[in-house]
Amino acid sequence: MINRLAIIGMGLIGGSLSLALKQAGRVQEVIGFSRQESTRQQALALGIVDQAPNTIAEALHGAEMVVLAVPMGAMAETLMMIAPHVTDKMVITDAGSAKAQVVEAAKRALGERFKQFVPGHPIAGTEKSGPRAAFAELYQDHRVVLTPVEQTDVTALEQVRTMWLATGAEVTTMAVAHHDRLLAATSHLPHLLAFNLVDMLAQGNDVDEVLRYAAGGFKDFSRIASSDPVMWRDICISNSDAILDLLTQYQHQMNLLQQAIEQQDGDYLMTVFKRAKQARDTRFNDPDLIDDSEV
Amino acid sequence: MINRLAIIGMGLIGGSLSLALKQAGRVQEVIGFSRQESTRQQALALGIVDQAPNTIAEALHGAEMVVLAVPMGAMAETLMMIAPHVTDKMVITDAGSAKAQVVEAAKRALGERFKQFVPGHPIAGTEKSGPRAAFAELYQDHRVVLTPVEQTDVTALEQVRTMWLATGAEVTTMAVAHHDRLLAATSHLPHLLAFNLVDMLAQGNDVDEVLRYAAGGFKDFSRIASSDPVMWRDICISNSDAILDLLTQYQHQMNLLQQAIEQQDGDYLMTVFKRAKQARDTRFNDPDLIDDSEV
Repeated sequence: MINRLAIIGMGLIGGSLSLALKQAGRVQEVIGFSRQESTRQQALALGIVDQAPNTIAEALHGAEMVVLAVPMGAMAETLMMIAPHVTDKMVITDAGSAKAQVVEAAKRALGERFKQFVPGHPIAGTEKSGPRAAFAELYQDHRVVLTPVEQTDVTALEQVRTMWLATGAEVTTMAVAHHDRLLAATSHLPHLLAFNLVDMLAQGNDVDEVLRYAAGGFKDFSRIASSDPVMWRDICISNSDAILDLLTQYQHQMNLLQQAIEQQDGDYLMTVFKRAKQARDTRFNDPDLIDDSEV
Repeated sequence: MINRLAIIGMGLIGGSLSLALKQAGRVQEVIGFSRQESTRQQALALGIVDQAPNTIAEALHGAEMVVLAVPMGAMAETLMMIAPHVTDKMVITDAGSAKAQVVEAAKRALGERFKQFVPGHPIAGTEKSGPRAAFAELYQDHRVVLTPVEQTDVTALEQVRTMWLATGAEVTTMAVAHHDRLLAATSHLPHLLAFNLVDMLAQGNDVDEVLRYAAGGFKDFSRIASSDPVMWRDICISNSDAILDLLTQYQHQMNLLQQAIEQQDGDYLMTVFKRAKQARDTRFNDPDLIDDSEV
């Protein structure tokens, strides 16, 4: 049971966490903070939080657990803002989609109390955002990845794990760099490829016709390219190292494919296409392996 | 009413055309040809065709309409095989996913009778193939594109259009180059990007984990990369010019995105992501615009 939970950022992610813990009876009181007065009022009206004070100081006062559920681009600043109000008794965690940069920012902002910070990433989301989009079941059967570092306090880690398990999520622990590479491969790079394709076609004269004739392949790409631009800008910048590593490799392999098409090298094309199909088909036979989350 | 229809290739595309025309009462007799005895027997047993002779000569004998529904890679050879048996009374059409190369092959193979050839592309498909996958409703509300050239006989064009309309499809006419560019953009390039991503990840040590953590973005890519390798090899080779044009442009734009990430240029990223999202959202509001077909 968490007696007093402070959630900074009351959008889909923070709001859904609060609702899930309330529904499970695992939290006494939830204090929400958002810079925008309208968001605070909305979260109160929707019953997402019990209190929504005007200042971060009040929001953190007496909290056992502090969850940072702000956009990636606001994470470093938010850590600086909470730092003066963090006490020895608080556990702090976040919900950012890339971990290395958040860990560095937490180290800088929290100093000695960095050990109380547990980096986390709930792999869940929908196309919608804001408090209205929040719902208690968002994390059910989704993965939450925690990326503790050497200094991370074991008790703090257990408290964060326990909190996420109460939402119905499956909690995994892995190294920061491993998380960032894994997410770059499974989510960040695919989004980048899709944004690039749709943007390229959007600049053509025949964009309306192209979209009208959008066949299976393109329809999936365009759905991905409909994701929130701010969030994806922040992710690209926050996880740039892992993304650039993979992107360089991707571009290299694409150049080889391009060459094979130029040289009408059917054998090379078959090798690539078969290998891709086989990797996918052998592993995706089990529908349970497929995670339905957005980010 | 078509009195005698010859379908060369009795897979999903040819088989479904036959079933659709039979169901609509628009064909008297369907003669199917396949090189494989087992496919011929299967098509007969399933009631897809009324006769399945051993030779192309017999299959074409007396046919009013000849439909080539073989894989793209077999199209040129099939055109050479039918050529000696084509009479003045026959209309010939095909179902290939790229048109320029088929048109060239038809010109070479059919000579004077090239005017009786109407290049076509039914934009429909499923993940399955073979006669067993065929069903009468495949073309309903799907697009069929016809790409007549200067020499194409107007009556032949009308006969092919009438045939496809009877299957419930919407029939559009456009220039060969236009079709090939449009399909490269909406289908061929997306498939290539997806195959490349999944193949790259399949070669990593952590492929199992990557697939286990596959989030929204990657799941869509991996579905696309599960398409038939032979078909996509043939498409890449048949439509190489249009694909390479777009791929060069795509790679150029991707290099700019890569640079922006390296330089942490959030403004550039926002411009691209916003433009993509807007192009997609403004046009995909109307769900009728989305075509559910595979290729």
